[in-house]
This record gives sequence, structure tokens and C-alpha cells, in this order.
Amino acid sequence: MQDALIALTKYWTDRGCMIAQPFNTEVGAGTMNPATILRVLGPEPWRVAYVEPSVRPDDARYGENPNRLQTHTQFQVILKPDPGNPQEIYLASLEALGIDVRAHDIRFVEDNWASPALGAWGLGWEVWLDGLEITQFTYFQQAGGMSLDPVSVEITYGIERILMALQGVTHFKDIAYAPGISYGEVFGQSEYEMSRYYLDTADVEANRALFETYAAEAERLIADRLPVPAHTYVLKCSHTFNVLDSRGAISTTERAQAFARMRGLAREVAALWTARREELGHPLGTGAASAPAEPLLLPDMTGAAPAVPSAPAAFLFEIGTEEMPPGEVPKTVDAVRAAVADKLAATRLGHGSIEVYGTPRRIVVTIADVEPREPDAQRTVKGPKVSAAYDESGQPTKALLGFARGQGVDVEDLTTAEFGGHEHVAVSVTDVGRPAPDVLSALLGEVVSGLRSDKNMRWSDPTLSFTRPIRWLTALLGEAIVPVRVSALNSGRTTRVHRTAAEPVVQVPSAAGYLEFLAGHGVVADAARRRAEIVETAQSLAEKVGGQVDVEAESSLIDEITNLVEQPNALLGNFDPKYLELPEQILTTVMRKHQRYLPVRSAGGSLLPNFVAVANGECDGAVVRAGNEAVLRARYEDAAFFWRADLDVAPADFRARLTQLTFEERIGSMAERADRIAAVATDLGGFVSLPSDDDATLSRAATLAKFDLASQMVVELSSLAGVMAREYAIRAGETQAVAQALYDMELPRHTSDALPATLPGALLALGDRFDLLMAMFALGAKPTGSSDPFGLRRAALGVIRILRERPELTEVTVDRGLAAAAERLRAHGVPVSDDAARAAHEFVVGRFAQQLRDESVPADFVEAVLPGANAPGKAADELAVLRGRADDAKFRELVTALQRIARIVPEGTAAEFDAARLREPAEARLAEAVQGLGDWSQGSAGAFSDTAAAIVEPVNTFFDDILVMAEDPDVRAARLGLLATILEHSPRTINWSALDTALGQ
Amino acid sequence: MQDALIALTKYWTDRGCMIAQPFNTEVGAGTMNPATILRVLGPEPWRVAYVEPSVRPDDARYGENPNRLQTHTQFQVILKPDPGNPQEIYLASLEALGIDVRAHDIRFVEDNWASPALGAWGLGWEVWLDGLEITQFTYFQQAGGMSLDPVSVEITYGIERILMALQGVTHFKDIAYAPGISYGEVFGQSEYEMSRYYLDTADVEANRALFETYAAEAERLIADRLPVPAHTYVLKCSHTFNVLDSRGAISTTERAQAFARMRGLAREVAALWTARREELGHPLGTGAASAPAEPLLLPDMTGAAPAVPSAPAAFLFEIGTEEMPPGEVPKTVDAVRAAVADKLAATRLGHGSIEVYGTPRRIVVTIADVEPREPDAQRTVKGPKVSAAYDESGQPTKALLGFARGQGVDVEDLTTAEFGGHEHVAVSVTDVGRPAPDVLSALLGEVVSGLRSDKNMRWSDPTLSFTRPIRWLTALLGEAIVPVRVSALNSGRTTRVHRTAAEPVVQVPSAAGYLEFLAGHGVVADAARRRAEIVETAQSLAEKVGGQVDVEAESSLIDEITNLVEQPNALLGNFDPKYLELPEQILTTVMRKHQRYLPVRSAGGSLLPNFVAVANGECDGAVVRAGNEAVLRARYEDAAFFWRADLDVAPADFRARLTQLTFEERIGSMAERADRIAAVATDLGGFVSLPSDDDATLSRAATLAKFDLASQMVVELSSLAGVMAREYAIRAGETQAVAQALYDMELPRHTSDALPATLPGALLALGDRFDLLMAMFALGAKPTGSSDPFGLRRAALGVIRILRERPELTEVTVDRGLAAAAERLRAHGVPVSDDAARAAHEFVVGRFAQQLRDESVPADFVEAVLPGANAPGKAADELAVLRGRADDAKFRELVTALQRIARIVPEGTAAEFDAARLREPAEARLAEAVQGLGDWSQGSAGAFSDTAAAIVEPVNTFFDDILVMAEDPDVRAARLGLLATILEHSPRTINWSALDTALGQ
Repeated sequence: MQDALIALTKYWTDRGCMIAQPFNTEVGAGTMNPATILRVLGPEPWRVAYVEPSVRPDDARYGENPNRLQTHTQFQVILKPDPGNPQEIYLASLEALGIDVRAHDIRFVEDNWASPALGAWGLGWEVWLDGLEITQFTYFQQAGGMSLDPVSVEITYGIERILMALQGVTHFKDIAYAPGISYGEVFGQSEYEMSRYYLDTADVEANRALFETYAAEAERLIADRLPVPAHTYVLKCSHTFNVLDSRGAISTTERAQAFARMRGLAREVAALWTARREELGHPLGTGAASAPAEPLLLPDMTGAAPAVPSAPAAFLFEIGTEEMPPGEVPKTVDAVRAAVADKLAATRLGHGSIEVYGTPRRIVVTIADVEPREPDAQRTVKGPKVSAAYDESGQPTKALLGFARGQGVDVEDLTTAEFGGHEHVAVSVTDVGRPAPDVLSALLGEVVSGLRSDKNMRWSDPTLSFTRPIRWLTALLGEAIVPVRVSALNSGRTTRVHRTAAEPVVQVPSAAGYLEFLAGHGVVADAARRRAEIVETAQSLAEKVGGQVDVEAESSLIDEITNLVEQPNALLGNFDPKYLELPEQILTTVMRKHQRYLPVRSAGGSLLPNFVAVANGECDGAVVRAGNEAVLRARYEDAAFFWRADLDVAPADFRARLTQLTFEERIGSMAERADRIAAVATDLGGFVSLPSDDDATLSRAATLAKFDLASQMVVELSSLAGVMAREYAIRAGETQAVAQALYDMELPRHTSDALPATLPGALLALGDRFDLLMAMFALGAKPTGSSDPFGLRRAALGVIRILRERPELTEVTVDRGLAAAAERLRAHGVPVSDDAARAAHEFVVGRFAQQLRDESVPADFVEAVLPGANAPGKAADELAVLRGRADDAKFRELVTALQRIARIVPEGTAAEFDAARLREPAEARLAEAVQGLGDWSQGSAGAFSDTAAAIVEPVNTFFDDILVMAEDPDVRAARLGLLATILEHSPRTINWSALDTALGQ
Repeated sequence: MQDALIALTKYWTDRGCMIAQPFNTEVGAGTMNPATILRVLGPEPWRVAYVEPSVRPDDARYGENPNRLQTHTQFQVILKPDPGNPQEIYLASLEALGIDVRAHDIRFVEDNWASPALGAWGLGWEVWLDGLEITQFTYFQQAGGMSLDPVSVEITYGIERILMALQGVTHFKDIAYAPGISYGEVFGQSEYEMSRYYLDTADVEANRALFETYAAEAERLIADRLPVPAHTYVLKCSHTFNVLDSRGAISTTERAQAFARMRGLAREVAALWTARREELGHPLGTGAASAPAEPLLLPDMTGAAPAVPSAPAAFLFEIGTEEMPPGEVPKTVDAVRAAVADKLAATRLGHGSIEVYGTPRRIVVTIADVEPREPDAQRTVKGPKVSAAYDESGQPTKALLGFARGQGVDVEDLTTAEFGGHEHVAVSVTDVGRPAPDVLSALLGEVVSGLRSDKNMRWSDPTLSFTRPIRWLTALLGEAIVPVRVSALNSGRTTRVHRTAAEPVVQVPSAAGYLEFLAGHGVVADAARRRAEIVETAQSLAEKVGGQVDVEAESSLIDEITNLVEQPNALLGNFDPKYLELPEQILTTVMRKHQRYLPVRSAGGSLLPNFVAVANGECDGAVVRAGNEAVLRARYEDAAFFWRADLDVAPADFRARLTQLTFEERIGSMAERADRIAAVATDLGGFVSLPSDDDATLSRAATLAKFDLASQMVVELSSLAGVMAREYAIRAGETQAVAQALYDMELPRHTSDALPATLPGALLALGDRFDLLMAMFALGAKPTGSSDPFGLRRAALGVIRILRERPELTEVTVDRGLAAAAERLRAHGVPVSDDAARAAHEFVVGRFAQQLRDESVPADFVEAVLPGANAPGKAADELAVLRGRADDAKFRELVTALQRIARIVPEGTAAEFDAARLREPAEARLAEAVQGLGDWSQGSAGAFSDTAAAIVEPVNTFFDDILVMAEDPDVRAARLGLLATILEHSPRTINWSALDTALGQ
């Protein structure tokens, strides 16, 4: 291992990096060393490499876990500014480590990095070596809340992982550290003891005191304008926070507060450092980028340039990038297609079909039959009115002479034409068509500079901004280069193929046949073709082991894989069947989310001990397969470790441990929250006629609610909350129903997730969400803007979805749920104001409205049913009914009638009238009709409208014949009372005015 | 610089060292990294090398000082166990750094290392490169209070210093750190800001709180048996302590307490680590020493062994060591000489003169004319008494037969002899003389194993212990090897000469002419010759610049140099004359104490800008001279930096800053102490008839007392306290007298130091010491055993010496001084009990008694004058008088008489008598004589004894004739009153009983 560190040190110092030393206070990553986090600020160039033992208390495992260490070794490199080819330089460093980059599958897989505590973020990749993450590669965009200019490239090697792969060992302790000495021999005791400290024995009060002292010292030092020692104390804060966190002593609120405080300090340190460097006159210079360490391998053009075609010819434009995130590839393809088409349409250049293809590293535009040039075009230019063109003596006026001069024509050549009914002097002008290259140059430059993604970054280019760096442009019309200049980029004839190819940069002879040309270099530009290849080879590999890949179910994963490679190279890997004892969801979660492997299933659908990994391009299949298998084994070993450890603990014991997990300090531990959830679910069960077995299930499941949050598996893979509860419960002898209820209560996890399958589960799920919502509103912690740290929007939406889905829950209204939650919170000593309850109600209703709008319900229809949103299921039903009657003229008339009434009746008018005062026939008739109406205030709008059809005509007659605002106050009161009675008897759940607007009347 | 780190890393990893990383909490030295301080414990082998940025808040200088950094870079190597030739391996590492070890003067200069905070110590050297300390080289003996077995070799390179020398730059900021980047560019800002933190802005209360928290956490972790995290917290304690110290916030008492606490923690951590490693089964093995990295270059014997001489021959025995401390060389020579002579005398081996010589690396014993063997010797062995040898019938008894059998002779061969007046059977036995090699082998083994120094160490040898490792033995009788085996050492024919010689290990052909043989290899074994060479060449070099070396004054330095080299190679160096503006004592202190250079002076005695350095053996004179000059320049630059900075501050301002220096927290700041000193000195001045100019001087000097303690120079070189006060005072316009008084008040610094030259200075010196003594006794902080952290013994002795020296101070008694100090302390709110004052008085008196004993005054004489010790000057005068009269019979009679009286008169007897009751002639006569005696109670013993001679005869007659204890109580009272009156009237300052014993009566 030490040889690897020496090799990397040598490699990077040979490339102009300075060596720094690990920092002398605990850091979670090399990034936090001032040699990175401060030096990336400001204009000074900086190249540095260093080892950083990185301390992550959360990763403490007593040295038992084969892959997880509380202190792991990072090798950190900063290249500032971006030299233009950092990926290539990086790959060569792997060769320096003895890795044959041609044999392995090395990929740059989207990974965006952010450190809230440092106010820092960047975009980049995990680098995968046969599926193993060995390096974090980031273009640093911001630090301490400041945008970085120039951008730095940060390369962080995970040394233990690389060494485990290189040495083929399966436990970090077995790494050969130095000749004759293993890693475990050197660091084993420290791993154990530091784990004990971080997990078990660190004194919480002492560490809280340290945090405060450090933060105060940092604040003082900032006031004293000393960023260097201040930064040290920010780091000490950060480490202490991590210690507290690994001791389970940090609540969500405390986390937010601590992060805010650390981020604030980090920002001030960054600003101060930047100012101080400026005051010091930027000791390292502000000079131009240091020359790239290695020249870009773009060969100059040689020989005479081919002529621009004089006949329609194929056109090729390629935008070469570093690996785009898979999700960005199709979006960018679409955007480029639209932009090219639109911009071409605004010219007169004739062309054939436009095709756009995308891979992670390129967007390829081909246009068939591009005319050599635009046709000329005639155009009439308006001059002065004829009446103003000549003076009384018929001589040209100054205005006319000026126009002629401006147009470059003699007065004699002018004609006249009519513009807007007036006769004007005019001239006919010929717009000469531009040559195709000129047209394309201008247009394509705009396409490139207009590229945008969801999350954009900057790199060495002075002005461009995109999802990842754009590194080259290829533009050929026929065989001729079309010059496209965008910022620092100049188009050429070269393209780049696989970085590990014998010739990674190649010359493109001609635009024609470019896709085949690329294919000849192992690049499949067409995503559809890549996808088809993946599906086909994956299936045929799966068949070899008698299995199949569920292409339907894995569709989005296959989409992702398609855009992770330029040439799919599917490989079949195996894993030890013993892992099949683990719950399937664990195995597939790891495969899909972590590794992007396709699970292989038997015809019956059960998981086989195989997977399909898709490498990028040519490599040594045996090596890559072995590597991927090792990675999966390590991950499964991790999971199995947690699984076994968790199975030793009874659910009730896990449940008891929830007292040690703080959810939010003001509302108590996770155990208290689980207690409240159970109670609220039980309360809500009172509004449902629960079958007795469901009742028993609910009781039992409630006592265990959330227990799996204390399990190691869920601590590790939080997305398995609920999943693990079900698994562990079953194995602990709980009934299937209880296990399912515990599973169900975590549903839905996100917008498109499944809903609870069982009623007890649904009640627990509601209890969970009502408690969360009510608690957070009680604390005044409602979401603002994009910030929703407690996931309240998701919770509200879950409530709505469950209530809409389950007719049994009709009586479980939002208000009842919030009230039950409020009661339990108060019982736990949390004050809940009426305002808070109201705000929570409005928030949930707001989510319901939003959900309806997202379902394309017109806003006025949404508005119309909101008075009934307290019971979202019913409200949705009503909505369907109302919309079903939208074309029903009778109904529309009714709505209009009710709307007229609603508009005229002042708020607060009593729904009563003295019938004796109503002497006019129209009013008497209406009164009679109303008496036949009955009270529908709690009824459904559909049924009401059937009945109420009878009052439409009397209402209309009433309005035609009667002046409601009679001078006699008694008469007026009786008439208004009559109308108010109609409203009073109509369903309260409908906003008739909104409905009237919705119906377009 | 980074290339140097890489070169060292490579060098040491090639020699089996593992790389470790710098520790991730601040450490003051690489030693504190657990890779050293924990790994040196226990039996497991360990070889490690690492860089350690070492943080020393005390060295913070805002980056301005050219040689001093708050963080400097150490390169640390641990070789465990000692490979046997670590110095040679180390020297080769310097070559790997590009240092031509043959051109330079590289020396191992005694430097013993101890870290009280870590409970650790070791013996070793500073390694000097042309006078520059570049490495600390230590044989680690103890850590965490535990003795180390095996011993580890610790090598610590000071990278900045080495690089400054290699790159020839004079400021650390100018070191080329990496291509195109200087050290200052990389670290300058950090140096400045961290200095600001450590010196100016670190929050004292916050850091005190951190210290407590860290210590408590360490204690908890020790209780939890987790030495690794506990050690981390001990380090954090240590760093925090250093921060507080550099902020001037640590009093002497706090320092002692903090060290005790940290030492205690370090011990517990060490013990725990050791126990835990044992529990873990010593993962790295307990195996034998790993093989030495490089074989020792001792050639095997080849060819036939020369025969042992058969005639008297020269004998050579050499004990080869690593560099002994200079002070140990002559002591060891003497010890070996005595041991060899004594042990040889106990044999019968004939030999000529024994000569013993010493250099830092060898003790050479030569013995002339060693006989080939001991002569045989006859001896008579006693058998049974003749009476018991034969039975009645004249037959041999069993006893006789047994004796004969035991002696291996026939009964017939027995004779008889007389033993103790009895006739015994006897036998005459011949003791055959042993061959010389046998005699010498046994004897010399004992000499070697019996070697001891003041401070002994262990190394790779299993049993030996000495000042430094013994690495070889050479023993030849004539040309033959005499086998000597001691522990792991075996004598041979080889010796080692200069390590940089072409042939560093050579074969010695013969014992004869060995000194010449060594001289031929550049080693001068005879210290007297080396010394003479040094004196001679130093003088002749000094003459070249018209100067001279004051051989007399530099005698002890020359002695030291003599034993720092094996072959003196004196070089004349120069320094910039501008430094002569600095006070001479600064320049010579640096030359002598730090560099062991001889100052060069003009005929008039003024310092010249030259020095004589003495290199060891051959080297490139120009290189070595330049190197030494650079070192001196750097040191002078340091001093000049302080000098200039200090001159900008007025003495009164320095005096004001003393408020920030805590002396001892319970007795206030150094400023308060200076106030008290001034007040006590003024009080004591009241007992002296001060001339008015002295009075003015005292007043002024008192207001500035101790001001220089706040100066940078004194903070740096505390031995210059007083010296700098005088210099700065003069330059600030104070009178010469005031400046001198401020100088004087620090005198005497040690037992043989000069005393204050002026009366105001003496009074201030007394004020200083009385305050210190009274304050510490008031706090109960009196010295115990060998512990005297406040230097109270020295202070008391200073008081005594000053009072004895100055007759003007007769009235300034110990009690008055302590009383004045007590009064001032009380005024400052420090309670001083009468017991404390009494204890302080007794302590000072005890020192006086000890001083007298040290002056060879017999104990009884000392005792005799102790009652007058309150005025030590007077008491010493009395003592002289008394001893002068020791042979005066009259005086002796007087003393005896007084002693008789003192013995008979009960304590408390009133000194009055009713003369009427004294009717016997003898008593009446005595009463008469006494009335003529007068009152001498406050007078001198000498004058008294002249007068009192008159009462001797009456006293003797009284005792002859009178029974004092008469039956009549009145008579008895009168008689005792008479005698008591004599005592009462005799000087109170004399203990007559003790004097009587002293006079041997």
C-alpha cells in the first residue's frame, strides 16, 4: 500500500503538483484540508497532491466490516485551474499504479458532491474500476458559498479500495501495507478502539461543550480576520459534530442548526481568506492557467484542406463532452435537435433530414443533403411616402436622397409600392444567399453556447456552462471543416473515441457515414441501438444460466445503462448463492442502485445468483467480470453482516432502542414518536369499522412501529425502512399481517410509490404522517421555498393519496388526523396552538389541490371542491361527478343559479324567511320549491343536483320577476332569507362560484 | 523540499520502514504520533518513517524570524529494535539527500531528550552538519514511565533546517518548496495567522476549558481501556497546554500541575497499550530483532591467527562506543584506568605501565610488557589438627584420609604446619600461573560490564548499560587477539576510524604502536594532545586576524571541544561585524553555549568578528567554514531580531507588560512580584546608611525591576536576564548606576556566580530572593527531596552569600528580610502565617549551615554559630574569631565553663539573684566577677571572651566548692540565678555547648 502512495506522489509531483501533508486536525475528507478548501478560492493557480487519512465516525465498525473503516486513506489531488484534460491525466495515474486501463472497465459515473457544512459543491463522477468506486472526480464549483473562478479539478483516490482490488483481498485488514506487514496489523487496534469511542463511549456532553467552544473560537478568529486558525476550528466543529452524530445525539433540528452554523462560519472563512489573499497581493500570482500538464492530443490538420462541396452534401456536427449524466443525454439530444431545427428554419439553407444522437461523451448531429449555399432572395424596402419624396417642383427631397444614398441606389432606380394604404418610394433589394458553412458556423455556435442542463457547471472554458465540460467540436460539411468557434472551442476534423483505444483521437474523413465511422471505433452513437444491444445480450447471457432479465421491470435502469456507455459490453457475473438467503429487496437494491446491474431471474421470477453488468467497450472480460463480482460480494458481505447482526436482536429490543435515536429534540426521541404514531393510528381506527383480525394486527404492529430504524441495515440503507421491518418481524415470529402492516406503514415513500396494501398499515402510515405534520407545524417548522428538511410535502401527499385510495377511510378526515396527532403531542408536552393546527390543515389541503392540478384538473374545478378537501376521497369523488356533468345543460343551469344566489346573499344572512312576506307569485313559487328541496348540506353534490334541478326554473323566474332588494326591509329580509336557505341546504363541500367559472358560464 | 521528503521516504522504505502519516491532531513533535510513542512500547518490532508537521506555539514569530516557525516539518524514523549500526544507516540517508558526508563536518553532539508530559526520555545526540543541528538522534529508554525493551532508535530530521543549508538560503520563506513555489508562498500566511492565534488571540478561558474537557475524556477512555483514543486526548491536552503557555497564561504552579496530570495520563495510556497488545497476542510478533538493515561492516578474520607471544609484549584493549558526552570521556578514562590497575593487581600477571586514553568514540588501554603468563605460586593448605589426624594406634583417621583424597595427594606426602597456634596436617600446593590471555579475558570483561556513567542507557545489547552504546572491542596481545566476551560483544582485531573514511573499519596489525596506528587514520587518542593541538591551532588562526583566544577564560569550553572530536580540525570563521553592535554577552553566549565556538578577541580584549570552530577530522574546509558561518549568522540574526524589536520598547513599557506574565497564580503576576521586590528592597535600604546617590539609584531601579523579563531576548535566552536589563536600560537613557543595579539584582545566578557589585543592586537582589522565599513558604511550596521548581535553595544561598559579602548589610537580617517580604505579600492579599515565616527562616538558616559545611567547617562549629545565623555575615565573622582561638587555652576554659553553666541552668531560669544569699566565698567571688562582666548579650563572642576570661577561674572554683542544688530553696535559686546571669550576659549568637564539643573538650 505504501508503494501505491509513493507511486501516486511521484506521478503527481512529476506533473507539477506540490506535496502537502495530511492536516493536523481530524478531517472527514482531504477536501477539508486547507490545501484544498481554501486554496481553491480566488485566482491563484494551485497544484497539490497529498495523502489524507479521513475520519468518518459514522463508518466506524470496530474493524469488523471488511470494507468500512472509521479512518480511511484518501489521496487527494487539486489541479487549479482545470488543465483541460484532467480525465486523461488521471487515467495515466492509474497506469502508474500498475492498473492496465485497457484490460479494465473504467467508467466515469455521475456523482455530484456537496458539503453543506462547508458551503461547497461540485459536479463530477465516481470513477468505477470494474464496478468499484475507486475515485471521486469533481469539478469544484463553489466553496464557502463562493463561486470559484477558476474552477479546480479535485481527484480523490480511495486507497484502501484500490488496494483491495489490486491485491485481490476481501477484507481491508488483509491489505499488504508494507513488506511483511498487513493493514490489520498496523491499524486493526486503532480501528477497534476509535470505533468504540465514536459508537459507544464518546462523552456526549463533553463533545457538545467542545462544539460550542470551537465554534466560539472560530467566530472570534473571524472577527480578528484570521481565516487560517478560524478554519481549523471550523474543522474541529465538523469533526465533533460527526462524533455526536455517530453517538446518535443529534436531532434533525440540531443537525439543521449545526449545519447552518458551520456553513455560516465556512462562508465567512472563505470570504475572509479571499480578501486576505487579495490584500497579500496574491502571492502565487493570478497569472494565466499554468500550461496543461500534457498537451491535448488533438493533431493539427495536415495537407491541403478539402474543398467545400459545391453540391448538396452530408453535414456532421459533434459536440464532444466529458461523461454526461445518463439522464442528461436524451434531454440534450432533444434540445439540440430542436435548436438546430429551429435555427435552420430561420435561414434559407436547404437541407434534408436532421438526426441527433447521443452517448455519454458526444452529441452527434447529422443533416442530410445540405445545399452548398442559401438561395438569393428579393425584398422591397420602404422609403418615404411619395408625397414627401418630391418637393413642389418635382425635385427629390432631402428625405428621398437620403433614402437612396442609404440603399446605395440611384434615385432613378427607385420604384414605388403601397405600404399600409399609402404610396411609398421603395427599392427592391436582393439578399444574397450565404454559403452553407457561414450559415452553419453562426447557428451551431449558438447551439453550443445555448446548451443547458438541470444542473450546470463551469470548467476551464471562459464562458461556457453545461452539465459537464465540452471538450471538442467536430464539424464537417462533406469533407470540409466548418469553422465553429464558441468561447475557447474551435471545431476541427478530429473526434475522440475510447480513451483506452490505441488511437484515442482520430481524424474524421467525411461527414458521410459518420455513424459507421464511429461504430468502426467502437462507439455506438444511436441510443436506441445501444439499448437494443443491451437488452438482447443481457437476455442471451441470462439464458445461459437458464434465466431471464425482466426487461419491462428494469426499463428505467436499462435506460440509465444505455447512457452510461458508448458501446455496451454486457457481461454475466455470478455471486455466491448463499446471499440468496438475504431478502430479495436487499439484493436488488444493491444491484440496481449501487451497481447498475441487471438482476437475473428464473422463469418463475425468483432471483438467480447472477447479474448482468454492462461494461463500456472492449476490455478483458474475465478481469472485468471478476472485478464486478468482487464488488458485489463486498457489498453483499456488508449487507449479510448487518442482516446477521440484526437477526440477533428481537424487534421489541430494536423498538426499545429507539429511545436512543433523537428525532427532533423538542419533540423527543424516535421512541416517543413511534408511541404517538401508534396512538394516532389507534384513534383513527375508531372511525373505521375494523374487522377484529385487523384490529389485532393494528394493536400488535403499533407496539413495534418503526423498530427497524434501529437496525444496522436500515441505518446503512435507509431506503429499506419498512422492508426490513417486514423481514425481521416475520423471522421473529410475528404474523404475516403484522409484518405487512409494518411494511405498509412506510408507504408511500415517494410520489409514484405503492400505497399500503392493508388497512392496519394504512392507519399506521396515516398516524406516522399526521404526527410528523402536526409536530412540525407545532414547532413552526413548515417548509419554505425549496427547503423541506422533514419531508412534509411528501408526508401530506401521502396522507392525501391514502385517503383518496381507501373508501374505508372516508370518515378519517384531515382534521381528525391532525386533531388526534395534536392531542398526543400535547400529552407528550408539546404545545400545539390552534393556529398551528389550522396551518397544517391548510398545508395538506394545499397539497391536495396541487395533486389535483398535477392530474390536469383545471384550477377552477380544483377550487370548486376544496371546501370538501377535509375528506379528500369524497372530494375527489365529487369532482368526478361534477366533471361528468359538465356538459349537462340542466346541471350547468343549476350551478349558474346557485352562483347567482351565492353572489347576492350577504355573508351571515340567516337561512330563514317569513313565507307570509313573499306575496309575489315568483317568490312564492320558489319558496315552495325550496321547501321540497330538503337539507343536502351534508349530502353529495351529485344527488343534490338531481333533486335541485327542480329549483332551477323557479330561481330563474324569481330573478327575472323580483327585485330582491325591495324597499320594504321585511320583504327584503324574507327574499334574502329564502335565497340563503337554498345555499344552506346545498352541499357545503362545493364552491359554486368556482364551479360556475369552471364550467365556463 | 518535497524532493527531500520523497528521497528520505524512499531511503527508509528501502530499509524496511513502513510509512505512517502525520497525526491528525496537533503534535509538538513526531515523537508524539502514536506510531512512535505507543509503538516503542512492548516487545513488538517496528520500523516506521513519516513526515510530521510539528506545532510549537512558543516558536511562533509571525513568520518574521528567519529560523523559527510555529509549525516545522520533522521527518521521523523509528527503528525498533536498535539494528546495531543506526548511525551508519543514518549517515547514508544524508547521502541520499545529496549531502556529501565527506566534505562536511558531521558530528554527534550529546543531547539528552526528555518529555515530562509523556513520561519519556532517551539519550542521544543532536547531529551537527557544520555546526547546524539537523537531526535529533535518540535511543529511547522510557515512554509513559515504562522502561523500553527493546530499545528503539529515534531519528528526527529537521527538514527546514536541512533544506536551508542545502539550498543556501537564509530565511525559511526562501526555501524552494516545489518547482517554482517557495516555502513562504505556501506557508507564509499560515505562519503569520497561526502565530497571531498562539501569541495574541487564543482565548485563554476557552483553551482552559478545552484542556479540562480533553483531560476528562482521556481519563474516561483510560477507564474504558481504550488507549488509542485516550492517547489522542492526551495529545490534545498537550497542545492546548502549549497554546496557553505561549499566551503567557501558565504559572509555574499550573505548569507543574498540568505536567503531573499529563504525565499521569501518559503513564496510564502506556500501561494500558502494553497490556492491550499483550491481550491481542502481540500482532506484530515478539520475535527476535529484525535483521539489521545493513550488515555491520566488520570483516571476519582471515588467514591463520597469529600466535600468542611467548615473551613480554604490548597489550591493547579498545572499547569502541558511539559518541560519548564530552564530560564522560575523562571520567571513563579514569574509571577504566583504575579498574584495570586494580584488577591486574589482584592477579600475578607481570606488566609494565598502564596507559588509558579517551576520545568520544573509544577508550584505549595500553599495557606495556605484559608477561606471557602468570608465575606459578606455592600455597599451604590446612588439614585436620595433627591430634585428630591419627588415631590412638597412629593410623590415619578418616578425617586425614578424606583431606588427602580431597587434595589429591597420598598421606605420605602430607606435612604439618602451625595454624593459629595449633599443629595441623598440611599440604603444599602449586597454583599454576594462567596464560596472559586468560587473565586478561576475564578481567577486561568485568571492566566493560562494570562501565557506568552519570546517566546510563540501554541499546541492542542484552545486558550492558552505559552512557552510549558500546559497539566493538579490540583486544590484542602483541599480534594475537585476546578473546573478550561481554554480553553480545566479542573482541576482535578490527577498530573503526572516521565513519567517512574510505575504509571506516580497519584491521589492527599489532598492539604495539597503536596510538601511531590510530594517528595514521586520523584519530588522536590522547586527549592532552588533542587539547594542545586545539589551543595551538586556535591561537594561530586567531593571530591571522590579529586576535587571540583567551585560553584561560575558555578553559572549560576547550575541555569540552577536546572530547567532541577525535581529530581536531580548527577553522577560522567570520561573522558580519555589524553584529558586534550587539552586547558582547549575547554573542559569546551564543558562540559558547550553542555552538562551542571559541571567541576571538583583540589584544585589548574586545571581541573580533571571528570565531574558531573545531571540526572533527578531514573535511572540505571551505564548505565547513561556510556552513558554520551560516549557522552563526542565523543565530545572530535571531538575536539581532530580538535586540532591535526590544530596543523599540521603553523599559517602563516592558515593566508594564509584566502584568501579563503570570509568575504563580496565587501570588499574582510578575508585575506584582516586581512591585514587592522594589518595596522590600526599599524597606531593607532603611537598615543601611545609603549614600544619597545610591538612594536615588535604588528608587529608580526599583521601579524598573525585572522589566527585561518581558523582552523577547530574555524570553528566548533566559540566562540573559539582568544582562539585557542593563543593556536596554543604558540605551533607554538610564544612568549607568541604575543599569548596573538592574544587572546586579539577578546575581548570583548559581553557586559560583558573582555577587552584586553595587549596594542598590544587592538590596534589590535581596528583595527578589526574600519575596520568592516568603511567598513560596506562605503557599507551602517548600522544596522536597530533589524537587525545587522555584529554585528556593538557590535563592536562600544567594541571600546568605550577599549578606556575608557586604558589611554594609549587617543590620539586614534574614528575619527583617522575610518580615518585609511577608508584609508586602499580605498587602497583596497573600496570607502569610507565622509558621510560614518561621519555616522560611529555618530554611535559610539551614542553607547557611550547609554552606558552612561545604566550606569544610566542622559541624560542631557550624552548630556553635547558628544562633547568630539571622545575621550570617556577623555569624561568619564570629566563626572565624572562634576558630582562631581554638588553640587558646584560656578561651577553651571559658567555653568549658560556659558549657557547664549552660548544662546546669534549667531553661527559663531568671537571670537575677539575691546576692545576700550567696554567702560562701566561692559564690560571692563569682557574683562579684559577674557584676564586672557587663552585658555582652548583643556583643561579639571575641570581645566577650576577652572580658569573660576573668570569670573562668571564679566559675571553676564555684563548681569545685559549691553545691548548686542546695537544700535551701532560696540559696539554690540565688545560685542558679547567678549562673543564669552569666549566660544572659554572654553573646546570644553562640551555642556554647556545641562550641565546647567543637573544641574537642
